[in-house]
Amino acid sequence: MKIFRDIVEMQRWSMEQRISGATIGLVPTMGYLHKGHLSLIEEARVDCDLIIVSIFVNPTQFGPNEDYGKYPRDKEGDIEMCEKAGVAAVFIPDVDTMYSHDASVCVIENSLSQGLCGQSRPTHFGGVCTVVAKLFNIMQPNVAVFGQKDYQQVAVIRRMVQDLNFAVEIRVAPIVREHDGLAVSSRNMYLSNDERQQALSINSALNLAHESFFSGQDSAVEIKNLVIRQLHEHCMDVDYVEIINGFDLNPVETVQMGDVVVVAAFCGKTRLIDNCIL
Amino acid sequence: MKIFRDIVEMQRWSMEQRISGATIGLVPTMGYLHKGHLSLIEEARVDCDLIIVSIFVNPTQFGPNEDYGKYPRDKEGDIEMCEKAGVAAVFIPDVDTMYSHDASVCVIENSLSQGLCGQSRPTHFGGVCTVVAKLFNIMQPNVAVFGQKDYQQVAVIRRMVQDLNFAVEIRVAPIVREHDGLAVSSRNMYLSNDERQQALSINSALNLAHESFFSGQDSAVEIKNLVIRQLHEHCMDVDYVEIINGFDLNPVETVQMGDVVVVAAFCGKTRLIDNCIL
Repeated sequence: MKIFRDIVEMQRWSMEQRISGATIGLVPTMGYLHKGHLSLIEEARVDCDLIIVSIFVNPTQFGPNEDYGKYPRDKEGDIEMCEKAGVAAVFIPDVDTMYSHDASVCVIENSLSQGLCGQSRPTHFGGVCTVVAKLFNIMQPNVAVFGQKDYQQVAVIRRMVQDLNFAVEIRVAPIVREHDGLAVSSRNMYLSNDERQQALSINSALNLAHESFFSGQDSAVEIKNLVIRQLHEHCMDVDYVEIINGFDLNPVETVQMGDVVVVAAFCGKTRLIDNCIL
Repeated sequence: MKIFRDIVEMQRWSMEQRISGATIGLVPTMGYLHKGHLSLIEEARVDCDLIIVSIFVNPTQFGPNEDYGKYPRDKEGDIEMCEKAGVAAVFIPDVDTMYSHDASVCVIENSLSQGLCGQSRPTHFGGVCTVVAKLFNIMQPNVAVFGQKDYQQVAVIRRMVQDLNFAVEIRVAPIVREHDGLAVSSRNMYLSNDERQQALSINSALNLAHESFFSGQDSAVEIKNLVIRQLHEHCMDVDYVEIINGFDLNPVETVQMGDVVVVAAFCGKTRLIDNCIL
């Protein structure tokens, strides 16, 4: 497995692979890899000749009071996992490599990124779009795989690909859950044992929403209240609960199949997100 | 010569050329081609296997009270000129092809684009960056050629390429002038005969600045005053006259070799720009 820390070397290698006829699947990550990331790698493997995993905790997508500094990192463990997963190359640059001191260009999405997570994290999706645009230009993948857990992120990135005409196919892998239903996330490691139990209420609340809808309830308000009640019962601090159209992310009043229940909630200081496509 | 109006077809063709080992030179234009554009094509020809010219009057780089509607267009003449110049492909999309109704992503440069033209045209460089990013993703060129006349534009695009890691080499072709010294521009066609005479003062003012500097004057204020006086004598309405460092575009006080005298001035309603590297 190749390990690249330099942009030009990574870019040159990728271009050589493309010109030799290989198809490249990119899995962009912030590292601290878990079985959610492995499922993205599996998704890329389906029809790509080789897989590149990028490992970069991107400072520009964290707000000033967020967890950039303490975000978990394990470069050696990550590299080992990639090697075992049959990844062709890992791109693991420094912050100074990715952002020069005079960097002044960013990619902004002005519509889908405004609500939901964008409400409490106003600079988040600008940081995401900018770094993903950079990664696309560096790795020049045919396919990039993202996780459905970050539902809004996927919608924003799809829009960026459409609007900036990136020749990259965006693929989405389903949410991977722990045996007890908690959506797998690098941030789960912040949770104490008690918080870990509380956090299960997110999945159980989403399950309630699912059951309610498929039992005939189609009022978004009613279903949202069900979810919020369940979260409050487990002392979760709700950031948002919304039922949205899966394409434009606008809240719906009457719920239809394909709409998405999206949740962000604090469990102690840890902000968790999850969602469920109805 | 191939003519493409569709993004996907253009993109597929370009990728095929790249994978076959050809190097692509892109000349992005707003059409109404003149000998300035031809010099860009010649510059691309030096070491590219094939040249693509894009022809697109980009609405997003015009301000609300600017000349988007009346900007000169001559698609048939342009295509004929490209054919004669040995261009391999012309990309000539509609506005609706380039911008979908729900487009919401833009590329923004926050430093180099703030002064000079960015002062009186605050949305201009965002529009330029966004459309150039799109064109790079569609055509995937090895080289893109721009004209030195748009000095600030070149600096902003270079920064975009650096910050977003586009695998594109930016090349700059010198300013092409009419026999009497006026910098060639599609907007020159707006000028009446009298205005055409007045407009010559821009080049003569730049020549004065050049002579003054190489006669030992190194005060930016003095050289700027010389330029402004010359323009005012010919009834030009000055937008800005500045002497800048060619890299960060910051104004200098003491002028050094390599600094750039940049001018924007109105001749009647027509805004003209020009510059001179000392």
